[in-house]
Amino acid sequence: MEAKDNGPNQRPSNGTINGPTNPMVTPLLNDLYQFTMAYAYWKAGKHQERAVFDLYFRKNPFGGEYTVFSGLEECIRFIANFKLTDDEIDFVRQSLSPACEDAFFDYLRGLDCSDVEVYAIPEGSVVFPKIPLLRVEGPIAVVQLLETPFVNLINFASLVSTNAARHRKVAGKSKTLLEFGLRRAQGPDGGVGASKYCYIGGFDATSNVAAGKLFGIPLRGTHSHAFVSSYMSLDEITDRSLRRKDGSSTCEDFVSLVQTWLSKIQLFNGVFGETNQSELAAFTSYALAFPDNFLALVDTYDVMRSGIPNFCAVALALGDLGYKAVGIRLDSGDLAYLSYESRKFFCSIENEFGVPGFGKLIITASNDLNEETLDALNKQGHEVDAFGIGTYLVTCYAQAALGVVFKLVEINNQPRIKLSEDVSKVSIPCKKRSYRLYGKEGYPLVDIMTGENEPPPKVGERILCRHPFQESKRAYVVPQQVEELLRCYWPGYSGKERETLPPLKEIRERCINQLEQMRPDHMRKLNPTPYKVSVSAKLYDFIHFLWLNEAPVGELQ
Amino acid sequence: MEAKDNGPNQRPSNGTINGPTNPMVTPLLNDLYQFTMAYAYWKAGKHQERAVFDLYFRKNPFGGEYTVFSGLEECIRFIANFKLTDDEIDFVRQSLSPACEDAFFDYLRGLDCSDVEVYAIPEGSVVFPKIPLLRVEGPIAVVQLLETPFVNLINFASLVSTNAARHRKVAGKSKTLLEFGLRRAQGPDGGVGASKYCYIGGFDATSNVAAGKLFGIPLRGTHSHAFVSSYMSLDEITDRSLRRKDGSSTCEDFVSLVQTWLSKIQLFNGVFGETNQSELAAFTSYALAFPDNFLALVDTYDVMRSGIPNFCAVALALGDLGYKAVGIRLDSGDLAYLSYESRKFFCSIENEFGVPGFGKLIITASNDLNEETLDALNKQGHEVDAFGIGTYLVTCYAQAALGVVFKLVEINNQPRIKLSEDVSKVSIPCKKRSYRLYGKEGYPLVDIMTGENEPPPKVGERILCRHPFQESKRAYVVPQQVEELLRCYWPGYSGKERETLPPLKEIRERCINQLEQMRPDHMRKLNPTPYKVSVSAKLYDFIHFLWLNEAPVGELQ
Repeated sequence: MEAKDNGPNQRPSNGTINGPTNPMVTPLLNDLYQFTMAYAYWKAGKHQERAVFDLYFRKNPFGGEYTVFSGLEECIRFIANFKLTDDEIDFVRQSLSPACEDAFFDYLRGLDCSDVEVYAIPEGSVVFPKIPLLRVEGPIAVVQLLETPFVNLINFASLVSTNAARHRKVAGKSKTLLEFGLRRAQGPDGGVGASKYCYIGGFDATSNVAAGKLFGIPLRGTHSHAFVSSYMSLDEITDRSLRRKDGSSTCEDFVSLVQTWLSKIQLFNGVFGETNQSELAAFTSYALAFPDNFLALVDTYDVMRSGIPNFCAVALALGDLGYKAVGIRLDSGDLAYLSYESRKFFCSIENEFGVPGFGKLIITASNDLNEETLDALNKQGHEVDAFGIGTYLVTCYAQAALGVVFKLVEINNQPRIKLSEDVSKVSIPCKKRSYRLYGKEGYPLVDIMTGENEPPPKVGERILCRHPFQESKRAYVVPQQVEELLRCYWPGYSGKERETLPPLKEIRERCINQLEQMRPDHMRKLNPTPYKVSVSAKLYDFIHFLWLNEAPVGELQ
Repeated sequence: MEAKDNGPNQRPSNGTINGPTNPMVTPLLNDLYQFTMAYAYWKAGKHQERAVFDLYFRKNPFGGEYTVFSGLEECIRFIANFKLTDDEIDFVRQSLSPACEDAFFDYLRGLDCSDVEVYAIPEGSVVFPKIPLLRVEGPIAVVQLLETPFVNLINFASLVSTNAARHRKVAGKSKTLLEFGLRRAQGPDGGVGASKYCYIGGFDATSNVAAGKLFGIPLRGTHSHAFVSSYMSLDEITDRSLRRKDGSSTCEDFVSLVQTWLSKIQLFNGVFGETNQSELAAFTSYALAFPDNFLALVDTYDVMRSGIPNFCAVALALGDLGYKAVGIRLDSGDLAYLSYESRKFFCSIENEFGVPGFGKLIITASNDLNEETLDALNKQGHEVDAFGIGTYLVTCYAQAALGVVFKLVEINNQPRIKLSEDVSKVSIPCKKRSYRLYGKEGYPLVDIMTGENEPPPKVGERILCRHPFQESKRAYVVPQQVEELLRCYWPGYSGKERETLPPLKEIRERCINQLEQMRPDHMRKLNPTPYKVSVSAKLYDFIHFLWLNEAPVGELQ
C-alpha cells in the first residue's frame, strides 16, 4: 500500500473512525499554553522540528498493580478530524497577544495531523506504569496541540475501565454487573464516558440510554421508589385486563388475580399484616405494562413484610398467564441478609405452590456499592445475582484521577530526558519500542523497552531486563513468546499500514481475556505483586549517560 | 403578563437560554427506567397526574458546612430544548419491550416541558442540606424524565464550585487562582464544566481554551517543560531582533543582550556555574514571541542555579527595551522555600540594578495543589502570588460526588413521604416554600421550610423553627430580614413571571458575596458550626403525622 493511499487526510473506508464523535472534543479543548507554545515555536522557525512524545502513567490506580488502557479510539478520531475552524482561529487570536503575527494564524488554518504518526498499545489491553501507551511523532507545534486532548481522553477512560475491571474481579465472573452511575457522574459526558469504559472493563449493561444508543451497550432499568410512592391504591388501575402470553385468552381482572395470590401467600406464610397498597398497586401496574419483564424494587416500605409478598403475588399472577417474572431489586438495608431471606421466601413459594424456577428469580442489589462492599458481601455470603453500581464506580471515588503524562523523548533525532529530584518522575528518553515477554506458563512475565533500532527480544533467547533507574534490579529472562506492544494507528506519511479500530465488543473481549491471562498474584486485592517493567541493557546505559550529562552537579551545604 | 406571552414554548427574547448548549445533553441522557416508568404511567392512564418533586442533597461535601449551588442554567436550557427526535424515539422503542403500544411513542413525540414549572434557588447561592434547590412540578411522566439529567447537571456543578470556593477560602482574597485541570478531568466536558463552575466558585481564570470561548472565562497559560527541553542552545534562535516596546528602534541582537545580563547577574550573585543553555534558549525564544507577557517555568533543571538567573537575564533584557516581564512559575519542589528564595533574588536584582518593581514580579506555583497543601503553605509562609490548581480541584479528589436526590413530595395534591430506616434519608413531604432568615448582624441565621400555603415568616415577628425530625431541637427566631429562596425559572402555564438567567459573571459575584456574608464559624475549615435548617411547626406536625401513618409497625424479636 502506498503512503498516499493510506494517508490520514483521507477518511478510512472501513468507517470505524467515523463513529460517534464527542462534539466537545475540538482542537480548542486544550490548554492555552499549547497555543502560546505553538506561536513561540513558529516565531522561532522551530514548529516543523520532528518531535517524539510518549504518553504514559506513573502509578497504577486504586492501590492495584494493573491498569486497563482505554480512550485510544477517541484519540484517533480526534486527530482524524483535527482542523481549526475560522471561528476557532479568531478566538485563539484574541486569546494570544495582539502583537502576534498574522502569518501564524494562516499556519493554524492549514494545520492538520497528516504529518503525525501515532503508535499505541491496543485499547482494552492490560498495561503498566512507564510503558508508553502512545508514542506520538510529528512537527512539534502540532504534537503539542495533541497533548491536552489526548491526556484528557485517556486519563478518565483508563481510570474508569480499570475501576470496572476491579469491580468485576471482586464480584466474580458469574454475576451480572450493571452500571447505574449517570446521575452522579462528573457531568453529562462523564456519565456517557463512564458507561462506555465500564463496559470495556467488564460490566454487562448500563442504565444510560444515551450510551446505549451511541455505543450499543445493553440497557437495563425498571422503576424507582417514586414510581411506587406515586400510587395510592389498586383503585387507580383502570384497565385491569392482561392477555395471556400465548395470546389464547385475556384475563379480565388481573388485579383480582394478584389479590387472590396475595391472600394465599399470606395464609401460607402466616403473616396477616397488610402489605403496603401503594406498592401493590405500583407493582401490578408495572406488570401490566411489562408482563414479560417484571422486575420490582421491593424496599420502598419494608422488604420482607411488604415488598417480597407483594412482588410474589404479582409474579405468581403473571405465572398463571404464562409470563415469567424476572426478579427483584434491593436498594437499602442489609443486602446480604435481605438477599438470603428473599431467596428463602422464593424457594418456599416454589415448593408450596409448585412453581418451578421461582426459587431462582434474579436478585439485584444496589445502594452505594463499591469494591469494598462487594468484598464484604462475598465474605458474609449472599444470594445476589446482579449488582447495580453507580457513584463509586463512575466517579472513581476511591481515586478520582489517573496521572497520565505526555513527555518529550526526542527532538530532531536528539533524545531528551526530563529530570526530577523525584526519581519516579524522571522520563525515559529516546524513541522506543516495547515488548511483553511471556513465560512458560503463558503468563506475561515482564514488559521491556528498547531503543527504536535495537533488535527485538527473541523467543527462547536470554535477554537482560533492567530496572530503568535502580542499578541492582535486573534479571535474565528467556521469553516463550514476545509481543510487540506499540502498533501503528495513524501512519502519517510513513507508509505503514494502519491498525483498524475494533468495535467496542472486541475491545471489551480483549480486556477480559488479558485480565484472565495475568498471573493471579498481580491481580489480587491485598498486597498484589508488582508486574515488572524494564529497559534493555543498552537503553539503561543510555539513560544514565544522559542523566549525568543533564543533571547539575550539586553542592553539599 | 399573560401566561401565553410568557409561555415556555416560546424562546425567551433575552436570549440567555439560547447560550452555549452542551450537545451531550439530550432527553436520552437518562436512565432507562425513566422511560419504562413513563410507559407504565401512560399505560395506567396516570402519566398526566400532577406531581411535585424536590431536588436537594443530604450532606455538605468535603467535611464542610456549606455548598455552592450551580448547574441551574443548564437545567433550564435543557427543559427549554426538551424534545425527543424521531431517531431518539425509535431508539427508546427498541429499548423497551416489543409489546409496548404504538400510541405511547406518539405521546413521546408530542412531549415537551410547556406544562412543567420549575422553581429554584438562584445559581451561585450558598445552600444547605435538605432545602430544595429545585422544586419541579408537572405531569409525572414528564417530570420523571427530568430527574436524571437534572441530578447529573447539578451534582458535579455544585460539587466543583463548592470545591473552588473552599480553595478560594484557604488561599485568601488577594491571591490569583488559576484552574489548570483539563487534562486530568473526568472527560472532555468534565474539564469544560469544571472550568465554568470553578470560575463561579471564585477562581480567576482557566487554562482551558474551550471554556474560555464558551463562557468568556479569562484564559491563562505560557509554556511547559517540553518547551524548555525542546531547545538545545541559543544557536537555534535565528531571528534575534526585537523592536522596543515604544516602537522607536529595534534591538538587532536580543540574544547578546540576554547573555550580557546573565553575566552581570552571575558576577553579582557570585555563582559562576553555567546555567542550562536549553532553558536560556527557550526563555529567550519565548520572550521574543511574547515580549509583553513573559512568564517562565523555571524548574525544568534547577530553580535557583539555572531557572531564576536565566529568567532574570531575559526579564532584564526585556526591561532594557521597555517591556515588563510578568513573572515565573514553580511546578515542583518546596514551593514555600523556592518562592522565598525567588522573591529574595528578585528584590536583590531590583536593588543591585535599580529596576523598580522587579521585586514584585509574580510568582505562580503549581504541582498537585489542593486545599491541604494551600493550608500548609500558608502555615509555613510563602511568597506565591498565584496558584495553578488542577487534578484535585477539577476531579473533586477529596470527594468525587455529591449526593443530590430528586424525591416525589406530592402527587394529585396528596403529600408523599419516602421513609427509610436511616432518618437522614427520610424525605420532607409536601409542596413547600423555603426562606432564609437573617439576624441582627446581617448573617443568615437559619433556613426554614413551610407548607406552600402557610403565611411567610415576617420581619420582627417571632417564629418557631423546628428540626425536621428531632423533636427536642427547636428555636424561636426573630428575623431582621426574610428572603424567599425559591424563584420561578420556568413558569409552565402558571402565568408567573420568569426569572431571567443572569450572565456567568453575575452568578460568580452572587457566590462570592454570599460566601462573604456567612458567619465565619460556618465557613472555617476545622470543625465548622452546622448552619441550621428547619421546618415550621405546622410542617413538622404534618411530617410526623404522615410518618406514623406510612411506617409499618415493627415487632421486637
